[in-house]
Amino acid sequence: MNHFANSRLDQEPAIAHLEKFQGYAEHTPYLKDTELKHSRKICQSLEDAIRASGLKDGMTVSFHHAFREGDKTINHVMDTLAHMGFKDLTLASSSLLSCNAPLIDHIRNGVIRRIYTSGMRGKLAEAISHGLMAEPINIHSHGGRVKLIDSGELHLDVAFLGVSTADEFGNANGISGRSRCGALGYAKVDAARADKVVVLTEEIVPYPNAPASIAQDDVDFVVKVDQVGDPSKISVGAARVTSNPRELLIARLAADVIEHAGYFEQGFSLQTGTGASSTAATRFLETRMRKKDITAAFALGGITGSIVELHKKGLIEKLYDTQSFDADSAESLRTSPNHYEISTNAYANPGSKGAYCDHMDMVILSALEIDLDFNVNVITGSDGVMRGASGGHSDVAAAANLSIVVGPLIRSRIPTVVRNVTTVVTPGECVGVLVTDHGIAVNPNRPEIAERLTAAGLPVTTIEDLYRRAISLTGEPQAIEFLDKVVGIVRYRDGSVIDVVHQVKD
Amino acid sequence: MNHFANSRLDQEPAIAHLEKFQGYAEHTPYLKDTELKHSRKICQSLEDAIRASGLKDGMTVSFHHAFREGDKTINHVMDTLAHMGFKDLTLASSSLLSCNAPLIDHIRNGVIRRIYTSGMRGKLAEAISHGLMAEPINIHSHGGRVKLIDSGELHLDVAFLGVSTADEFGNANGISGRSRCGALGYAKVDAARADKVVVLTEEIVPYPNAPASIAQDDVDFVVKVDQVGDPSKISVGAARVTSNPRELLIARLAADVIEHAGYFEQGFSLQTGTGASSTAATRFLETRMRKKDITAAFALGGITGSIVELHKKGLIEKLYDTQSFDADSAESLRTSPNHYEISTNAYANPGSKGAYCDHMDMVILSALEIDLDFNVNVITGSDGVMRGASGGHSDVAAAANLSIVVGPLIRSRIPTVVRNVTTVVTPGECVGVLVTDHGIAVNPNRPEIAERLTAAGLPVTTIEDLYRRAISLTGEPQAIEFLDKVVGIVRYRDGSVIDVVHQVKD
Repeated sequence: MNHFANSRLDQEPAIAHLEKFQGYAEHTPYLKDTELKHSRKICQSLEDAIRASGLKDGMTVSFHHAFREGDKTINHVMDTLAHMGFKDLTLASSSLLSCNAPLIDHIRNGVIRRIYTSGMRGKLAEAISHGLMAEPINIHSHGGRVKLIDSGELHLDVAFLGVSTADEFGNANGISGRSRCGALGYAKVDAARADKVVVLTEEIVPYPNAPASIAQDDVDFVVKVDQVGDPSKISVGAARVTSNPRELLIARLAADVIEHAGYFEQGFSLQTGTGASSTAATRFLETRMRKKDITAAFALGGITGSIVELHKKGLIEKLYDTQSFDADSAESLRTSPNHYEISTNAYANPGSKGAYCDHMDMVILSALEIDLDFNVNVITGSDGVMRGASGGHSDVAAAANLSIVVGPLIRSRIPTVVRNVTTVVTPGECVGVLVTDHGIAVNPNRPEIAERLTAAGLPVTTIEDLYRRAISLTGEPQAIEFLDKVVGIVRYRDGSVIDVVHQVKD
Repeated sequence: MNHFANSRLDQEPAIAHLEKFQGYAEHTPYLKDTELKHSRKICQSLEDAIRASGLKDGMTVSFHHAFREGDKTINHVMDTLAHMGFKDLTLASSSLLSCNAPLIDHIRNGVIRRIYTSGMRGKLAEAISHGLMAEPINIHSHGGRVKLIDSGELHLDVAFLGVSTADEFGNANGISGRSRCGALGYAKVDAARADKVVVLTEEIVPYPNAPASIAQDDVDFVVKVDQVGDPSKISVGAARVTSNPRELLIARLAADVIEHAGYFEQGFSLQTGTGASSTAATRFLETRMRKKDITAAFALGGITGSIVELHKKGLIEKLYDTQSFDADSAESLRTSPNHYEISTNAYANPGSKGAYCDHMDMVILSALEIDLDFNVNVITGSDGVMRGASGGHSDVAAAANLSIVVGPLIRSRIPTVVRNVTTVVTPGECVGVLVTDHGIAVNPNRPEIAERLTAAGLPVTTIEDLYRRAISLTGEPQAIEFLDKVVGIVRYRDGSVIDVVHQVKD
């Protein structure tokens, strides 16, 4: 009998309140079995992983959307959960896209009862906007999603995270293997916060997999699946290189604004997003940066190939990437030592101890609508249907020194500048400049910016003027007819409700 | 008035339970002030940071010990806290060393009431072993420390983390700047878990500092100090290159054991620690690896220059580093893309979802004493005074496929192999092999290992035989006289009590 046997320790009053040693594997029984020690997280099927996770009816399942339109994980898991008979689940995906149309059936059948997402598109968006769900969905920003989780409102019971490679302990990334989405900024949040974390991987690679974008000490189960996503579809509907003259005009004006607004100095920082004009604007920055002989300290957010190009040329020192928007950015994350992957908590959560967006000088943002108060709508289309995403829009707009919204004055005979936006996602007080193909409007709360842009000879006008021009071309748009039922709640990044979306009349 | 004004939202029953939007900066007022937005974490003095942290009497303050004997942070902060009048604090440093002797006064004066640490040395250890404190200290392993934190027993109120560089948001590392300690594996744990995190840095570098071993979203306050540590003293009393023939003999035997115990295959993993013999053993592995034409998948733990050398030569593919034991390893962490920094949670916490040590094939460990049941003491010296550290000893011993303890049979006429160790830190059931300068003993619970080593012609004997040889040379050591008072509680890695240390009689 060892001399540290309990009989001896039991006589010590100093430790009466503490558990006594019962053997090295008392709390880690798997350590007694070399095989089990290594394989204990591996599940033979998704069904096994779900059973092992302890998921129950009424719980919340979470996903990342880094594969965007190429995602193969969300539908697959929800189909499996439906097949296994789960009901009343809350679906918390960092976003949803057109590819998620099959979820309609799971909503109809009661598998999904509530949804938290940054956005929606396609048939799912149509159906929900037309009243498919009994409870309204919650639309959040990327930073605000983490805030909702940390506040306790959105408790993640089980996260299902699709990755291209993982080892048997769950060390995972999106930069190796076959279907590489690049950064796992959304997944990192869920991995760190969900009670149980299931990693779905296309390939189980030899231990230890590195880098560990998702770390083994956050992972409960690992399951091999055929495909987690199709990276070729990441950029569908988002970033693309434009040759549209109007978009190029806007892009050039946006680059002019960046150059002259007062923040274009050595070591500046920027986020350019994924719209056609903003992607193009990035490319127009190169000559302006070279002319002034300055470099940017860092670029943030969803990273695109055009940002990567400036990084490769040494014009942007560091990239902080929550989501890689194309193969170029995923490859840069893999190869560039100064391309860093960050969680959306570090990116933009206003409740975190520090968000990168707070250090943004300038951001280029898109808009479906912008109104006379500069409020921006990036959710509802001109028919009142939710067909967009909140994304990082309100996060970075609130935090950056200057937010620049870009967009054509008119899209398919629909004005972008309106009297009142259908849905407010980003409050106008956070928007500094609007750049359109008909001129630039500066928020009256930023007179110093208007002064600088005017001094630089840019076509500065007022938002009222842009509105009048739009209306003169299209006529005042007809009001959308809504019903009383609320189908969407737009949560501001701090968790508060900034707007609601009503069911559209058929 | 914006159309999303509360008056409208207040009429929506669907959102009656939710907060309404009150302005973009309602919950982030610093966003309204560009200067404050960036500087809000910077404190002008340590006193300011302490006041800002909300520290109160009776709370727990935490530290990392990556600078070991060169630490300049722990004493500085505790002196400041004493000067400010704080009382009854719990000191939770990942470890304490000889340099922490000044804490004796703070214990006497009631500033420090309780201590959690992996170990102690020098005058502080002497004083505590002689009954300085009213409450016994808790000695934990590196992994076990995280377990105690996560279990709630050890709640970290304020962490004070010394780093060589940080930016104004607290992104910090130990591989840039002047006083570079290398990996911040302990600090990462506290940064992620403490209620408030104060980063003490020698240099505030331009934003964004990278890599962010400590990330901005874990940091509350940043304060510049003159010096956080002297890296030249990291290896004092630990890793050194030996020319002692007896240590070289043990090292060669240990390398032989590694070669022949059955785990020396392509892709094996190892941890060699910092003792003289284990460091030397690492060097003896090179020829053995080349002869067999194999490489190791990874090395773990406290990383030393001798491990780095094998890594540079391509013999160890990846390094997982919680603590860099010399300048070579800190430099390798800075420069090698396959040298990864990991937290002690990922390293060894038995309560984490996965510890790297669970994937260890072989580990070389030291011992102050080892007994006939293979129990190991790495805390109390032959005089009963606590003068060592639990470290990762019990963590990796429990998890590795084979634990190899190395040590001379006799040190300064004191036997290492004893009938019963003074204090059990690592239970014998986890120890596979003992390598001494008088031969090798294999734990009877590992007969397959004894068989392999014997077949390889190694000098295998029994622990009883080694014990007899030791005693025949030194005589049976006199029993240490202890008093009834418990001065130290040795916590096993799972939080249970494996032994206690009594006050030594003067």
